[in-house]
Amino acid sequence: MTGIVPPLAVDDLCSFVGSADADVMNFLNEIALRFPDAISFAAGRPYDEFFSTDLVHHYVDTYVAHLMRQCGGDEVRVRRTLLQYGRTKGIIHDLIARMLLVDEGIDVDPESIVVTVGAQEAIYLVLRALRRTADDVAFYVRPAYVGFTGAARLADMRAIPVPSTADGIDLAELRTAIHTARAAGARPCVLYLNTDFANPTGLSMSLATRRELLRIAEDEQILLIEDNPYSLFTGDQERVPTLKALDTSCRVVYVCSFAKTVFPGARVGFAVADQPVTVGARTESLADQLAKLKSVLTVNTAPIGQAVIAGKLLDHGFSIRAANKREVDACLRNLRMLRAGLAEAFPEGTTPEVTWNDPGGGFFIVLNVPFVAGDEELERSARDHGVLWTPIHHFHGDGRARPRIRLSFSHLSPAEITEGMKRLTGFVKESGQA
Amino acid sequence: MTGIVPPLAVDDLCSFVGSADADVMNFLNEIALRFPDAISFAAGRPYDEFFSTDLVHHYVDTYVAHLMRQCGGDEVRVRRTLLQYGRTKGIIHDLIARMLLVDEGIDVDPESIVVTVGAQEAIYLVLRALRRTADDVAFYVRPAYVGFTGAARLADMRAIPVPSTADGIDLAELRTAIHTARAAGARPCVLYLNTDFANPTGLSMSLATRRELLRIAEDEQILLIEDNPYSLFTGDQERVPTLKALDTSCRVVYVCSFAKTVFPGARVGFAVADQPVTVGARTESLADQLAKLKSVLTVNTAPIGQAVIAGKLLDHGFSIRAANKREVDACLRNLRMLRAGLAEAFPEGTTPEVTWNDPGGGFFIVLNVPFVAGDEELERSARDHGVLWTPIHHFHGDGRARPRIRLSFSHLSPAEITEGMKRLTGFVKESGQA
Repeated sequence: MTGIVPPLAVDDLCSFVGSADADVMNFLNEIALRFPDAISFAAGRPYDEFFSTDLVHHYVDTYVAHLMRQCGGDEVRVRRTLLQYGRTKGIIHDLIARMLLVDEGIDVDPESIVVTVGAQEAIYLVLRALRRTADDVAFYVRPAYVGFTGAARLADMRAIPVPSTADGIDLAELRTAIHTARAAGARPCVLYLNTDFANPTGLSMSLATRRELLRIAEDEQILLIEDNPYSLFTGDQERVPTLKALDTSCRVVYVCSFAKTVFPGARVGFAVADQPVTVGARTESLADQLAKLKSVLTVNTAPIGQAVIAGKLLDHGFSIRAANKREVDACLRNLRMLRAGLAEAFPEGTTPEVTWNDPGGGFFIVLNVPFVAGDEELERSARDHGVLWTPIHHFHGDGRARPRIRLSFSHLSPAEITEGMKRLTGFVKESGQA
Repeated sequence: MTGIVPPLAVDDLCSFVGSADADVMNFLNEIALRFPDAISFAAGRPYDEFFSTDLVHHYVDTYVAHLMRQCGGDEVRVRRTLLQYGRTKGIIHDLIARMLLVDEGIDVDPESIVVTVGAQEAIYLVLRALRRTADDVAFYVRPAYVGFTGAARLADMRAIPVPSTADGIDLAELRTAIHTARAAGARPCVLYLNTDFANPTGLSMSLATRRELLRIAEDEQILLIEDNPYSLFTGDQERVPTLKALDTSCRVVYVCSFAKTVFPGARVGFAVADQPVTVGARTESLADQLAKLKSVLTVNTAPIGQAVIAGKLLDHGFSIRAANKREVDACLRNLRMLRAGLAEAFPEGTTPEVTWNDPGGGFFIVLNVPFVAGDEELERSARDHGVLWTPIHHFHGDGRARPRIRLSFSHLSPAEITEGMKRLTGFVKESGQA
């Protein structure tokens, strides 16, 4: 008789839990716990010097005052909005729509926004909604954020990689991948990518590439998931518009998180899904379909978390960019320090050669080293040099170590950067000579 | 060429979004919006007279003070616990374990607890983790909470109903359903049920039935998901132990929510999944597997929401039952008023006959009426009588109207119950004579 008897075997469970993808997070967390005194260039955390629990109270109160004004001082209604079950698509959609207009020039109907438990839930919901049969496929730029490939597995959507280039994506390869999939009987649905300061490469796409990508989406009848958590972390230079701002035919589902710009601990992100969907005689939106899925997944996103986000938006004229001036400056300072430290340790012409890129913002840079840098090298780096980083192969999902590592600089103090650079260059020099 | 071009058709998307299950919530919400002045016996909301935003602040501060004591006043660490990314399985697992011991006599390792975005995410995670192939099936007691059947669809797990009886579940039918499924090549995995004051019937299982159910789970090699949100809403009589308290062989995954006992707006629930899982040479727990899935679904449950729950637990010696004395008393008062109102309007022997059950607690009772009570009747009730309730067929998922309705009494004031009963009995009398 077949059945389920504890102890269960991992092979009797959902295939994801036994996969390498599922172990990445475990491995990286576990090594951080084993070497608590190591300086971490691994964690993709936001800068938290200016966080405080008082701010949580302040933002909630700001939002409560806003609700009170909106509903003429009806305390019971305000209390219910904040503490009872609420609208599946969220309660701060109107404020997010104003932010998108102010910060990104994206003009959307608030009704097309779904407030989610971080961007992660948004990515899952979009993939799950689009996944009709086993023939459906998604594409993604590789190396990629492991949360995407994990969400695709959870949604049972096959995910096909397309190589990253200096400009963000190899468009010729994308066309080929779509044609190959279609020729094999698959239905190409969607491409997932970061347009600005991509995780893990730090790379951004040019305007020309964005326009061409939209043309390809049009030609090939696919949607694009533009996941854009890092775009505000840059200087005062003119920014390249998002795909969503350039999108004139509802090709782009825009996904974003407040984890990097408010607090991760609020767990609030959102999707803009303004694609019309015909349901019998009615026209709904893709956002409405995401909400149907969300109602049986997490019901709604904690209104208390949404209140914190709303308070910060209200405090800063709906510009999350203005609200993060100090944090952005700290990240840019860290990036400058990191690059200066590398230039000092590895002047041009040094043998063996060590190179790195210049993302101009965001949370990450990629360091090219003259040795393969996998999990064993990370372990040695942590143990002997007291410094953590992320082997690039974790973003390829194939377990094959490469001579490249991702350095995250977003969350470190100047002193940590200085000391961390000393440790990191020590490790790289030792490994390069071995 | 096959592709995805807006406007999308609902038939091109995940089958759930075009299903009747997905429309239930929409329909019920929409009718409530169209008749805002109707008194609602439909919403399964907790009693909120004692909610306040000040309480949110107070509970967060209580938890922050607790963390400060725990880590010797390290403010940076406390701030990071509350506001940064955190442990996937949650940060208040130790406090929840103490609550389970105090309130339910359930003694579990805190490491086997996963804090989730309400019980809803917990149900999805368990189903998704157990779902290996298309042959896997779950069973559930019908009529059932629509969130279960929705989550099963999302997890692509086939769900087979077993009839409810006065004692909660027809155990002979359960055995038959398991044998039939297995004979057809399926792998029976799990049974989902509410043991106390079930949604929608209000029914509770006797101790003998609980013991027999555990024996069946043992014999038939299935797990049980015990979803237990309402058990504390009862009087001072001795309570029947939960399945989890009786479970000696890790057969039961216990799922619960703080939505009914703290605030829905915190969006915090949890699963206890202490089943050992062998992963190569290691032994992990089912909770660890749920955490792997959660890390690519919602990353972690908002620490800010968890802080609110923790504060209430800390304030009341880890007894959420003690903490809800006022709310429980209000619900029991409402139940008494509702039953008294029905007895007055429909004395025994009245023709046509109207009957109802006596759950002794919880949020719901079932009213048997002498006419089929479907969506059209609900519409008429809302329009002509100003009163809302839930047609029982929404919990059967087959669209076939029946002469039964679910009445929720948890969230109403005494004045609303009195006025609501007048309207409801008017509607029932008119419909019974038609």
